[in-house]
Amino acid sequence: MVTTLDIHTHKQGLYDITSYLRTLVHGSEIENGLCTVFIQHTTASLIVQENSGASAQFDLEHWAQRLVPEKDPAYTHTVEGPDGMSAHLRSVLTNTSLSIPVMNNELALGDRQGIFVWEHRRVGTSRHLAIDIRP
Amino acid sequence: MVTTLDIHTHKQGLYDITSYLRTLVHGSEIENGLCTVFIQHTTASLIVQENSGASAQFDLEHWAQRLVPEKDPAYTHTVEGPDGMSAHLRSVLTNTSLSIPVMNNELALGDRQGIFVWEHRRVGTSRHLAIDIRP
Amino acid sequence: MVTTLDIHTHKQGLYDITSYLRTLVHGSEIENGLCTVFIQHTTASLIVQENSGASAQFDLEHWAQRLVPEKDPAYTHTVEGPDGMSAHLRSVLTNTSLSIPVMNNELALGDRQGIFVWEHRRVGTSRHLAIDIRP
Repeated sequence: MVTTLDIHTHKQGLYDITSYLRTLVHGSEIENGLCTVFIQHTTASLIVQENSGASAQFDLEHWAQRLVPEKDPAYTHTVEGPDGMSAHLRSVLTNTSLSIPVMNNELALGDRQGIFVWEHRRVGTSRHLAIDIRP
Repeated sequence: MVTTLDIHTHKQGLYDITSYLRTLVHGSEIENGLCTVFIQHTTASLIVQENSGASAQFDLEHWAQRLVPEKDPAYTHTVEGPDGMSAHLRSVLTNTSLSIPVMNNELALGDRQGIFVWEHRRVGTSRHLAIDIRP
Repeated sequence: MVTTLDIHTHKQGLYDITSYLRTLVHGSEIENGLCTVFIQHTTASLIVQENSGASAQFDLEHWAQRLVPEKDPAYTHTVEGPDGMSAHLRSVLTNTSLSIPVMNNELALGDRQGIFVWEHRRVGTSRHLAIDIRP
């Protein structure tokens, strides 16, 4: 089963999509299998991270801003605005695809793991995911 | 086939799990297929890297310590101790899932590739992996 | 179906392999499924990135050179030459495997996404990929 999911983002940051994916897995009625999530963009990405505690998410975002600054004078790719090239680089450092085993009709996540879309652009938009769930 | 594997870590560093995965693939008797490994943690991660030469592994660990230092005064997420937030960030830079094709009942690794769990916490623990192997 | 693909690189940089993968997907006649690409090396890697605009690719390469310099005096792993250890580190920061859903016999890529081999060695070589495409 290959399906799509749209996530609306409104600013830079992490958007927890775990519950959407859980609902898809439950609906598939697949007991044991594999779920692959793919984001169809180069300025937003996927990560698996701590699902509790706003402080860890704050630090993640702040760290990305320091490691890959916007408006770096070294960038030549400026046609997408001051947050374009940094968004590409932050996407490359994280993930475009993730694969998670399914066990007992549940994503085999650890207790503290959540799956997030990371919006790297200042102005959010609609982000498209392609999702493959198979027994 | 979805199964689990526990790896005991005792300190920060790389733990070669290639032989455990090879054993699972052999036992599956799958000739051609796909093996997906998922680590159920946000302070330990997966990488594929050079399987020979302690110097490359030493440099990897030293580089991670320099790029993502512990006890950075910018971190607000300090409840997990001085190595907590750096462990999350190092996990984000590496992988939570890996997928490796299976050919002739062997993982299709290059000659010099090994699969490693990277423990980012100072005190090791038991790390849980979920593994999907399918024809 | 598990197959292999060799890509000849001649210097550091990004090599767009999207058309090769598209041809494999078309040839498979699989309508809906999953394509997994795995690179059998530790000094070259995979990324999904902007397929148009040489400036974004230039900035990506320049940024990697700044973030992970060659000949860093901290490296102890020098047996592979001045570009060996930096190549391992740049590979770790990017991807060894990628999984892309297949929809309507096409890779479910976004309009601006391409799939690239990133050669991290100064002198190119033949890079081997293992590719699993399944319904």
